[in-house]
Amino acid sequence: MYKFPASTLVSHAIILQPVIVQASFKTQKDLLGCRTKVPRNVNMEKLRNGYLFPEISRLEVQHIEKYPNAKLISLGIGDTTEPVPQIITSSMANYAHALSTVDGYTGYGPEQGNKALRKAIAKEFYKDLPIKDTEVFVSDGAQSDITRLQLLLGSNVTIAVQDPSFPAYIDSSVIIGQAGVEDEAGRYGSIEYMKCGPHNNFFPDLATTSRADIIFFCSPNNPTGHAATRKQLEQLVNFARENGSIIIFDSAYSSYIKDDSPRSIYEIPGAREVAIEISSFSKFAGFTGVRLGWTVVPEEVLYSNGFPVIHDFNRIVCTCFNGASNIAQAGGLACLSSEGFLAVRSLVDYYMENAKILVETFASVGLKVYGGTNAPYIWVHFPGSNSWDVCTKVLEKAHIITIPGSGFGPSGEEFLRISAFGHRESIREASSRLKSLFL
Amino acid sequence: MYKFPASTLVSHAIILQPVIVQASFKTQKDLLGCRTKVPRNVNMEKLRNGYLFPEISRLEVQHIEKYPNAKLISLGIGDTTEPVPQIITSSMANYAHALSTVDGYTGYGPEQGNKALRKAIAKEFYKDLPIKDTEVFVSDGAQSDITRLQLLLGSNVTIAVQDPSFPAYIDSSVIIGQAGVEDEAGRYGSIEYMKCGPHNNFFPDLATTSRADIIFFCSPNNPTGHAATRKQLEQLVNFARENGSIIIFDSAYSSYIKDDSPRSIYEIPGAREVAIEISSFSKFAGFTGVRLGWTVVPEEVLYSNGFPVIHDFNRIVCTCFNGASNIAQAGGLACLSSEGFLAVRSLVDYYMENAKILVETFASVGLKVYGGTNAPYIWVHFPGSNSWDVCTKVLEKAHIITIPGSGFGPSGEEFLRISAFGHRESIREASSRLKSLFL
Repeated sequence: MYKFPASTLVSHAIILQPVIVQASFKTQKDLLGCRTKVPRNVNMEKLRNGYLFPEISRLEVQHIEKYPNAKLISLGIGDTTEPVPQIITSSMANYAHALSTVDGYTGYGPEQGNKALRKAIAKEFYKDLPIKDTEVFVSDGAQSDITRLQLLLGSNVTIAVQDPSFPAYIDSSVIIGQAGVEDEAGRYGSIEYMKCGPHNNFFPDLATTSRADIIFFCSPNNPTGHAATRKQLEQLVNFARENGSIIIFDSAYSSYIKDDSPRSIYEIPGAREVAIEISSFSKFAGFTGVRLGWTVVPEEVLYSNGFPVIHDFNRIVCTCFNGASNIAQAGGLACLSSEGFLAVRSLVDYYMENAKILVETFASVGLKVYGGTNAPYIWVHFPGSNSWDVCTKVLEKAHIITIPGSGFGPSGEEFLRISAFGHRESIREASSRLKSLFL
Repeated sequence: MYKFPASTLVSHAIILQPVIVQASFKTQKDLLGCRTKVPRNVNMEKLRNGYLFPEISRLEVQHIEKYPNAKLISLGIGDTTEPVPQIITSSMANYAHALSTVDGYTGYGPEQGNKALRKAIAKEFYKDLPIKDTEVFVSDGAQSDITRLQLLLGSNVTIAVQDPSFPAYIDSSVIIGQAGVEDEAGRYGSIEYMKCGPHNNFFPDLATTSRADIIFFCSPNNPTGHAATRKQLEQLVNFARENGSIIIFDSAYSSYIKDDSPRSIYEIPGAREVAIEISSFSKFAGFTGVRLGWTVVPEEVLYSNGFPVIHDFNRIVCTCFNGASNIAQAGGLACLSSEGFLAVRSLVDYYMENAKILVETFASVGLKVYGGTNAPYIWVHFPGSNSWDVCTKVLEKAHIITIPGSGFGPSGEEFLRISAFGHRESIREASSRLKSLFL
């Protein structure tokens, strides 16, 4: 296996330095010298680095400036690249056109989403499961709903996250004031980090996991690509029930599951009383830019005082949000027609073929590869290496953007996350460059 | 002037009772009996009533059930009713269609909004003002950004609001934990209520206003319809500068200003150091369902420690939001083309003609009317009356939905807010019914 000689390593510190922010800060202080008396939010101060994905975008821009002639390939941010099937875009276009007619014009829709879409989501994504349309809240994407759930819960709850995990869980927890202080290893004192790696088949050792009020759990997992098995999720639900915790289950990648792993937490008996599920059309239908998602809050999820969580979430949605774009909702409804469903299925298959190529690429050079069979992410192990160093090396030598595992949490160290979103020719070209680099 | 005999009054308590919530709460507790150990957010507990506008919608639904044959007219929620000009809907439809092509497909856009739209907003809405495109953050609407600004500020700031005011300012303040405890009059202990009424030309007496970190100020005002004069806004900016406060200026109705009242707080010298501005395409272009707005954070707005607010707001936008729908943004850009701008201008003129009819209607029956000349809202005074009683009476007798002024704060008592959004024939019919009722 390839090992980077220490002398060629570029320090990640250079990359992650929030250069722009610090520079402007200084300039403005010198220039203006007029401060308000409004204190900076202490929670914002606790966010030491920028949010991971914009930082990766910035890295990309810097690289293009440095090597304007290099053909940069991005396997970094998990951003869909393939056109949306026409049946869906036509539906959105028709909706848009209708807005200029007297009969087709619509103003504010219900904050919770249009009834037809809520029904279709309940029916298509929760077949044979007793999810009511009134328990489905349409959103402008899972990321916004993660924050709305944090607002709902407030600062007096404790949270647990998989380590590594999608960074919005922790960052939103810091912003709302649940997280405590960050230590030198990058762990916040009040958050329970549930280590997930090859050693435990990417499922936390619950016997040594402290109770938390809220357990964020993502399956198929971003970044590791692991889809939790039925048995694992049964353990998780039992753990939550025993501890009186609420699971926030992120199933944004459920459509990528190829085997019989559960696609929804509600496939597990008892989950309706302890789980909220957030999900998205982004990766399912190429809606990353269109913005559409949903959250399910079953009526049975109750606070310790017996009050139903769904009523407070409804209040948050009505007060802090005004519904997803009506045009995007028309697109979502088209995705869930039988023809639309088949069409978006082919998008998922396309990206999963990419994933297969990338899994084979890394395996062929002797690296240990995880994920990529039930998820569009590949999680590659570089034992003994600093993941920012590997990321930098791959960028400098192969002009490929990846994401260092440590960006997803301390246990992501030694790993790279590789996204399978991309045009096929880019994936093939990336495969070829990676083989040359690592062989 | 018409006075309601006390005996015909229907108590507003019946209407505002959160019936559904309480009923389900009880049923579920009895039925399920399985509670988690997660405490309910104390801030959510402090929100005693439902959010105003969904409550009004519920009132509407109840009335239709009660009088299925009555032709209900809504002058309640300020929801646009007229078709969006074709030049704008075509632009959105074209964008949607392009998403099904290889060249036209786009995934995640910048969280802050597309560059072209940010530039167009800076150029068209802030002509001759030094607003940079990088200070413009595109949103999915002003309501979402009010909450994102509250998240940014956190629970350790104090706020002041106009009384009456758009209820999202106070409700989001309660949710984030700034508001303190509500007294019997409906005032939260930690919020500074700045009374605005005919007695002070709808501008607070700043000499008796306590300092707050954050001052929410809406002009043209929702609900009173008053557009603050230049002199008033100069006083406001000076007050903020003297006190080291930050103004959050809501200019969502600025396109309705007909006289020379400022359309942006940045027309006032010194505002760039103390003001954030939120605004929206909703009422400007009939985008209430399409969802598009923006927030301006000038680089010069600094916290007490000298740190620029813009950097923290950028972090919030990147972490808690993922950009507005790309299709909606294409529509926003079309609104700001010279042809699009003219087209949406005619929408504003249409609603302002409605406003004129409604102002004349109430004036003709001897009622004192405010607003309606620089804003699509009319604020009608019913001296000595309870505003919920008047609202109920108008609904029962004329089948017209209005909003009781007290829903916007204690100083809204004795007033009704009348929305000028509606088809012309409905407005004329409403005018006729109102004249019959009050003459």
